Amino acid sequence: MKKSLGARTLLMPTPVLLVGTYDESGRPNAMTVAWGGVVCSKPPSLSVSLRLNRYTYESLLKRKAFTVSILSEKHVAEADYFGMVSGRKVDKFHRTGLTPVRSEVVDAPYVEESPLVLECAFIKTVEIGVHTQIIGEILDVKADEEVLNEEGLPDASRVMPMIYIPECGLYYGFGKVIGKAYSAGKKYLD
Amino acid sequence: MKKSLGARTLLMPTPVLLVGTYDESGRPNAMTVAWGGVVCSKPPSLSVSLRLNRYTYESLLKRKAFTVSILSEKHVAEADYFGMVSGRKVDKFHRTGLTPVRSEVVDAPYVEESPLVLECAFIKTVEIGVHTQIIGEILDVKADEEVLNEEGLPDASRVMPMIYIPECGLYYGFGKVIGKAYSAGKKYLD
Repeated sequence: MKKSLGARTLLMPTPVLLVGTYDESGRPNAMTVAWGGVVCSKPPSLSVSLRLNRYTYESLLKRKAFTVSILSEKHVAEADYFGMVSGRKVDKFHRTGLTPVRSEVVDAPYVEESPLVLECAFIKTVEIGVHTQIIGEILDVKADEEVLNEEGLPDASRVMPMIYIPECGLYYGFGKVIGKAYSAGKKYLD
Repeated sequence: MKKSLGARTLLMPTPVLLVGTYDESGRPNAMTVAWGGVVCSKPPSLSVSLRLNRYTYESLLKRKAFTVSILSEKHVAEADYFGMVSGRKVDKFHRTGLTPVRSEVVDAPYVEESPLVLECAFIKTVEIGVHTQIIGEILDVKADEEVLNEEGLPDASRVMPMIYIPECGLYYGFGKVIGKAYSAGKKYLD
């Protein structure tokens, strides 16, 4: 018998995405977002949802560009801080010591210490409620050589990204590989 | 020095969401989706992206309802299988032995064996590319009593949801708690 918990955002996992933008004066900023993910394979696209009053929203819409940096679990304090305060009031990069790097692909900065970065061009906004969804096309992905596997793809066990659990407000690390796609389910094929 | 990997959907984590619908004849079906997540806090909403030719797309649009079941890692074979074949050709519930249960909230079935279920009303579609995004409002969340913590919220360590890593095609389990939100980052506050 399942218990009703009401209308709540109790989905898991949600990601920990640092959305990087330049503000009007060209100062780099980033904020942490858990409402987001991949939305399309072709063109490769992702979405992040922001409240309209966020500094990032203003900057992103003006520059039509943003990055998504995926930090490792060793940077949990920094990821959390980037979601706590507004770039209107404080230079979060300066405060934490993380390094903003200008993307060569889009007009936005990414986090140098992040082993995996997605560079995105703004496509459109989708109004939903208190959050507005921003859809961006992934123009390029950058990764540190050390996190790549034999096929040249980022290995999650080396990237060590974080997971966010909404409402509980907890960050988790990754566990072990439990199966391979289009393989684990083969036993049910005729 | 970061290496360029091209325009690819290399975001992590992505979720493993079983999208449940009834088809025209009332037969329960579900498919596994990794392109999705929370998109708004109020109204609580999520999105899943589907290709237009998916059987689930057709059913969902007709009934204006769907559920999202989050399976535990012990069901990795079932989750994978539900993403491999079409409900047009095969009864996936019958084949795997998973149990469809009629939601009392929306006109869609969820997976009984799933410890965490979100019941959604269709809000709108957003065209992006080969995938169309479906936005749904979360009307209720159901969870097994055994996975609830002291605050009555689903505990990820008990739900044991899966994580999907795109392009590598790997399923991961959850690891350990590495921090608390609005707490881990406090050391950077003035």
